[in-house]
Amino acid sequence: MINKLVDKIKKLNSPILVGLDPMLSYVPSHIQKKAFDVYGETLEGAAEAIWQFNKAIIDACYDLIPAVKPQIAMYEQFGIPGLEAFKKTVDYCKEKDLIVIGDVKRGDIGSTSAAYATGHLGRVIIGNKSYSGFNEDFITVNPYFGTDGIKPFLDVCKEEKKGIFILVKTSNPSSGEFQDRMINSKPLYEIVGEKVAAWGDELMGSCGYSYVGAVVGATYPEMGNILRHTMPKTFILVPGYGAQGGKGADLVHYFNQDGLGAIVSSSRGIIAAYKNAVYTEKFDEESFADASRQAVLDMKKDIMEALED
Amino acid sequence: MINKLVDKIKKLNSPILVGLDPMLSYVPSHIQKKAFDVYGETLEGAAEAIWQFNKAIIDACYDLIPAVKPQIAMYEQFGIPGLEAFKKTVDYCKEKDLIVIGDVKRGDIGSTSAAYATGHLGRVIIGNKSYSGFNEDFITVNPYFGTDGIKPFLDVCKEEKKGIFILVKTSNPSSGEFQDRMINSKPLYEIVGEKVAAWGDELMGSCGYSYVGAVVGATYPEMGNILRHTMPKTFILVPGYGAQGGKGADLVHYFNQDGLGAIVSSSRGIIAAYKNAVYTEKFDEESFADASRQAVLDMKKDIMEALED
Repeated sequence: MINKLVDKIKKLNSPILVGLDPMLSYVPSHIQKKAFDVYGETLEGAAEAIWQFNKAIIDACYDLIPAVKPQIAMYEQFGIPGLEAFKKTVDYCKEKDLIVIGDVKRGDIGSTSAAYATGHLGRVIIGNKSYSGFNEDFITVNPYFGTDGIKPFLDVCKEEKKGIFILVKTSNPSSGEFQDRMINSKPLYEIVGEKVAAWGDELMGSCGYSYVGAVVGATYPEMGNILRHTMPKTFILVPGYGAQGGKGADLVHYFNQDGLGAIVSSSRGIIAAYKNAVYTEKFDEESFADASRQAVLDMKKDIMEALED
Repeated sequence: MINKLVDKIKKLNSPILVGLDPMLSYVPSHIQKKAFDVYGETLEGAAEAIWQFNKAIIDACYDLIPAVKPQIAMYEQFGIPGLEAFKKTVDYCKEKDLIVIGDVKRGDIGSTSAAYATGHLGRVIIGNKSYSGFNEDFITVNPYFGTDGIKPFLDVCKEEKKGIFILVKTSNPSSGEFQDRMINSKPLYEIVGEKVAAWGDELMGSCGYSYVGAVVGATYPEMGNILRHTMPKTFILVPGYGAQGGKGADLVHYFNQDGLGAIVSSSRGIIAAYKNAVYTEKFDEESFADASRQAVLDMKKDIMEALED
């Protein structure tokens, strides 16, 4: 799957992905109304609204991007109906040949990580049959448990030719509280980064990058630069572009000299573009998906120009 | 909810909880057969089997214990039907007046943590209505993001009078890889423990303990002793008893002088007791729930005797 991701990035000249993190407040009122007319103001109604919202954005943008990153929390807040909308979104994106990075940030002790790996990347055995619970291509994983919490994910990745992105340095303001703490004159995030590189060495794709990637927030470009060198064969998923403050020019050091090695994610900046002052003149609520497409084109331009400089 | 937990522990003289982490291989064949006869060897069939398994164990043990801890990964591996079984289990336990600690180990940047907090502890607003997605009483939370990843959980806890248990030192063999790293001559887990105590200070129950608890594995009793003093008002959830190797005598230092301050969790040791050589003479597959009841009684005895010594 890392080979397919690299192929698609090269073919589309587009190292970006759309974070499908729908808040109900992002969903235009005509879509909410239609869903609520059928299902009422219920969890089912909200789930239908975010699914229709996602579908329109996917339809408008799928030819421009290699991958999407649905954030499962935004669906989980609507309980079972929300998780059904998550699954529908994953399945629909795969129909559109998009690579799906489930932003689930799971992680636990070994036997429990194995269950998460099965549910999101693998197949669960039931009698003589086996089934995929959610079937993403990649998921994000939390490293706090160390190697035996990670290994079950690696095992399933090897079997299924899928991948993970492990949290190394997150994009939020207080990420430094633990992640930046100095251990023998090295910050924790660098020690985690070294581990990610080591775990990844055992699971290399033919493209020269590992199936084991890392998450490094766009909001910490200097640390991105350091981590790029700590993990030369690790693909870096970079959240925090746009609404969280990251800009294309800040992100060049997350990439390798080959122009590859990173994929930049934007969520609110794309899916709620129609609410952004930059786009409100040209687009309205009805044309929200066109606004998203324009925001993808603008983001791509910003990043590709920065990489060419 | 922390007050209710302390009350129930005192009333039942039972600082233990049952981890409802059903693997399909734990479910006796007569229950599997019945479920598969109706639903086939499908995700729905597996979900029905683990739900019926849980229900029998809850019915057999609910009067002995204050709380249960369903591990969501074990349900998530069966996709949507599995998560429906998780929800049914949570709801049924609450009907039985058990306190439900959702072992979900969620955690993310602020806006995303807010969605997890809403989905598991709070209520999501849809138009003029609001709904609970999963409605546990407590959940477990991962600290890797720092304060702004934790704060949304605290906000919902304050509003709903619910609680969280934050991972401090986990029970798995490689937990030390990051958690034991020394930072200015203090291990990371202690620094996390100090933060947990500080976060908890703002959310104290009338029982003298905070709504913000900590997870400290039974497999590291010396660290449990240190952390007990680092976090005097923090309730400690102690996984790893039994199958993972923890014993009652090892766990006394997780408790305060008042005999409170900790709750010990056993999963496999209770729910799959009928497979354990200790119980196979007296119990068979058909009487698996009675074996679980006996295992709860034995665990309670082991821990209470250790506390009295």
